[in-house]
Amino acid sequence: MAPQVTVDSINPKVIECQYAVRGEIVILAQKLQQEIQAKPEAYPFQEILYCNIGNPQSLGQKSVTFFREVLALCDHPAILAKSETQALFSADSIERARKILDQIPGRATGAYSHSQGIKGLRDTIAAAIEARDGFPADPNDIFMTDGASPAVHMMMQLLIRSEKDGILCPIPQYPLYSASIALHGGTLVPYYLDEATGWGLEVSELKKQLQEAKSNGITVRALVVINPGNPTGQVLAEENQKAIVEFCKEEGLVLLADEVYQENVYVPEKKFHSFKKVARSMGYSEKDIHLVSFQSVSKGYYGECGKRGGYMEVTGFGADVREHIYKLASVNLCSNITGQILASLVMSPPKVGDKSYESYIAERDGILSSLARRAKTLEDAFNKLEGITCNKAEGAMYLFPRINLPKKAIKAAEEVKTAPDLFYCRRLLNETGIVFVPGSGFGQVPGTWHFRCTILPQEEKIPAIVTRLTDFHKRFMDEFRD
Amino acid sequence: MAPQVTVDSINPKVIECQYAVRGEIVILAQKLQQEIQAKPEAYPFQEILYCNIGNPQSLGQKSVTFFREVLALCDHPAILAKSETQALFSADSIERARKILDQIPGRATGAYSHSQGIKGLRDTIAAAIEARDGFPADPNDIFMTDGASPAVHMMMQLLIRSEKDGILCPIPQYPLYSASIALHGGTLVPYYLDEATGWGLEVSELKKQLQEAKSNGITVRALVVINPGNPTGQVLAEENQKAIVEFCKEEGLVLLADEVYQENVYVPEKKFHSFKKVARSMGYSEKDIHLVSFQSVSKGYYGECGKRGGYMEVTGFGADVREHIYKLASVNLCSNITGQILASLVMSPPKVGDKSYESYIAERDGILSSLARRAKTLEDAFNKLEGITCNKAEGAMYLFPRINLPKKAIKAAEEVKTAPDLFYCRRLLNETGIVFVPGSGFGQVPGTWHFRCTILPQEEKIPAIVTRLTDFHKRFMDEFRD
Repeated sequence: MAPQVTVDSINPKVIECQYAVRGEIVILAQKLQQEIQAKPEAYPFQEILYCNIGNPQSLGQKSVTFFREVLALCDHPAILAKSETQALFSADSIERARKILDQIPGRATGAYSHSQGIKGLRDTIAAAIEARDGFPADPNDIFMTDGASPAVHMMMQLLIRSEKDGILCPIPQYPLYSASIALHGGTLVPYYLDEATGWGLEVSELKKQLQEAKSNGITVRALVVINPGNPTGQVLAEENQKAIVEFCKEEGLVLLADEVYQENVYVPEKKFHSFKKVARSMGYSEKDIHLVSFQSVSKGYYGECGKRGGYMEVTGFGADVREHIYKLASVNLCSNITGQILASLVMSPPKVGDKSYESYIAERDGILSSLARRAKTLEDAFNKLEGITCNKAEGAMYLFPRINLPKKAIKAAEEVKTAPDLFYCRRLLNETGIVFVPGSGFGQVPGTWHFRCTILPQEEKIPAIVTRLTDFHKRFMDEFRD
Repeated sequence: MAPQVTVDSINPKVIECQYAVRGEIVILAQKLQQEIQAKPEAYPFQEILYCNIGNPQSLGQKSVTFFREVLALCDHPAILAKSETQALFSADSIERARKILDQIPGRATGAYSHSQGIKGLRDTIAAAIEARDGFPADPNDIFMTDGASPAVHMMMQLLIRSEKDGILCPIPQYPLYSASIALHGGTLVPYYLDEATGWGLEVSELKKQLQEAKSNGITVRALVVINPGNPTGQVLAEENQKAIVEFCKEEGLVLLADEVYQENVYVPEKKFHSFKKVARSMGYSEKDIHLVSFQSVSKGYYGECGKRGGYMEVTGFGADVREHIYKLASVNLCSNITGQILASLVMSPPKVGDKSYESYIAERDGILSSLARRAKTLEDAFNKLEGITCNKAEGAMYLFPRINLPKKAIKAAEEVKTAPDLFYCRRLLNETGIVFVPGSGFGQVPGTWHFRCTILPQEEKIPAIVTRLTDFHKRFMDEFRD
């Protein structure tokens, strides 16, 4: 018998799942990159500029020295006692590595840990959350994960029973959510962020969409909020967060708070507040609201995507439900220990008085202030282009400009059976090497077109990107202007 | 409204899923451990002896020096050029770290990689597979994963559409398989390993179970084979493997080959053969059979469980199906880079002539020969106990002895609403601190009782374990003998 597995016989949920951040445009970019390597004169550009994904170190951002020193020492503790090590590593990284090793049973960084993560590291993280929020955090509420993505999948797996279960998700949204809901067979209940008010999140819109879902027989189980926003870059005001908490409490919804960009706020008038802090400050305890906060080592100023560290803080669930969350974590045994150690480090970096403190602060602030400048430069550049408007990047790592495509361009896209925003991004890539992700991968108000652009290319490359983009856009508009 | 998520309203697939390796007995063990820490005289033993899980480094096994040197240097490449580094690290680990860094785009170990893993590392792994098997391996067939577990989930997610899809699994089996099938809503189609012939895998049994499943309206999609076996420790003979390949080819089944114990063979008369090598040596190509091989850095002599490295080699699927497997991998972006590097190292360790070669071989052979001795000692000890018979541990890290429980013990277990094997394991734990996993967690022929015991406690502790076990067993039998 011939092999039986064809696209017609695999799980249709897998077929339905989409993930644009590594989708068609990126596959095309990888192809072009190979062609350029083989034949440098093949295209009118020498390199692919990946603005598709929040992957800072792939674009030249350096890792933070203190973090990497501690990781290296934990990987190979045999050198801790050697005199040469004093010359190669900072005194406080040596001290921190010893402290972390003491927290690991048997100092065994190669052993599976507790399925929620090493207890001592969870203690460190809980203390850091407590210091950040001013409200208690319990290490037993922390589930350490390989980046934030597996944590999101775990919650979707827990909550979704069938296509009759819905999850309220922002549109535009980071497509991990739509992908995970599709894979688990649930229904994405969209709520639209208001572009006109800087991607505002209106509770009236949440209520409207919830009612509509209910009238369609959908049981809405949770609300996803991404703050700071991805792909939109907005930072929620505290008053707005309070209204969201109130809504979740009233409706009995789990609040799934994607807070992985908590360190990425670029405007002085905005500040990150965790949803847990907001809920507790309103007097709501575990008894009042189910709340899950996701954090990752991939974002912030550290950008350690490849290390796959992260955690979720799970509050408000009964002990019996918690046992099932624990069981889900235990089926994969534990998250990687290097990522666990790094998650404890980013939540508890060097402090005033530590040997590394000043060099650490210089690295951190250098990265964050550069990101703020890059965000502003790109935002200004987009707003100068004909037919493009771009909200402020208050936070996160992205801009999500809107492009008012000429009818002629839309028609040309339709002729090649392509979404108009994909048509634009494909042309941009082919002519300039710049990789944006079409807005359709994130969702957008029907009839509007956008793309997501990261603010991550190194600062010295930004002017060239702006020039190439501006020239391309002018040519594109000259060709298609109505 | 009060929070809405209760055990009655979560995904029933999550409730159905079981994972005994970290189940009730282990939770009890953790509780006892805390009690002993608080009050050392609380129990007649001073430490918990974890024989429940293949987690070598948690029991004192040392990591392999060369591997850890390379990981440390890749974590903190800034020290590569320093003179002190020459004194701390072997010359070939420095060279290997440089080579690996050169294979990583931008030398960025903190960046997300290609969703299948870093291409250069996949080249290394494919070359190692080719050297092992004598047949070509393609780096594009390698999907690097955070240990083998996510790879298994990915294949189950791909293949299972509903409870009408079945997966043939050995009984006893490693409960990752039953857990993953339950989570993805499929049907586990059991086939029994024959304890009387050393856990033999008979194709006649596969055929019988396949027919029975078909007659129940189940579409069987894949066959799971664990070789060397977990929890059974048997190593399949090549002739047997050929018959299994033939069966999968004839029936159009995907062969899911769990080969994570490929380095763990302890008897001279048996040798590990990969299923890919067996299939290719029979003249079967990609066109003839769907074959997936799972490998992990957690097992072998390296035992790097906490690093969560692994890969699957996926052959025989069409390009369109492969695209969907790639998409599933891309939704989680990539596996952790430390694990990826380690996977390349365990598949390509130091070679003759390398500076570290001799010390590496000494470490490797020291661990493997000790494991062989421990397996034999424990096997002999079990076989001396009244009512216990234990097959030879030819490979892997486990023994799965059968215990002929007295009727009185079975009745006592029933009275406390407990499976008899769990009853035995709980008593053993409470009286000796030894942690075994009851056979019911792995599956067993109804009416028979077993437990799984790892061979991993350090060699100097084995005599005490044997004594405590023997004394306990004698007391137990004296109490319950019919």
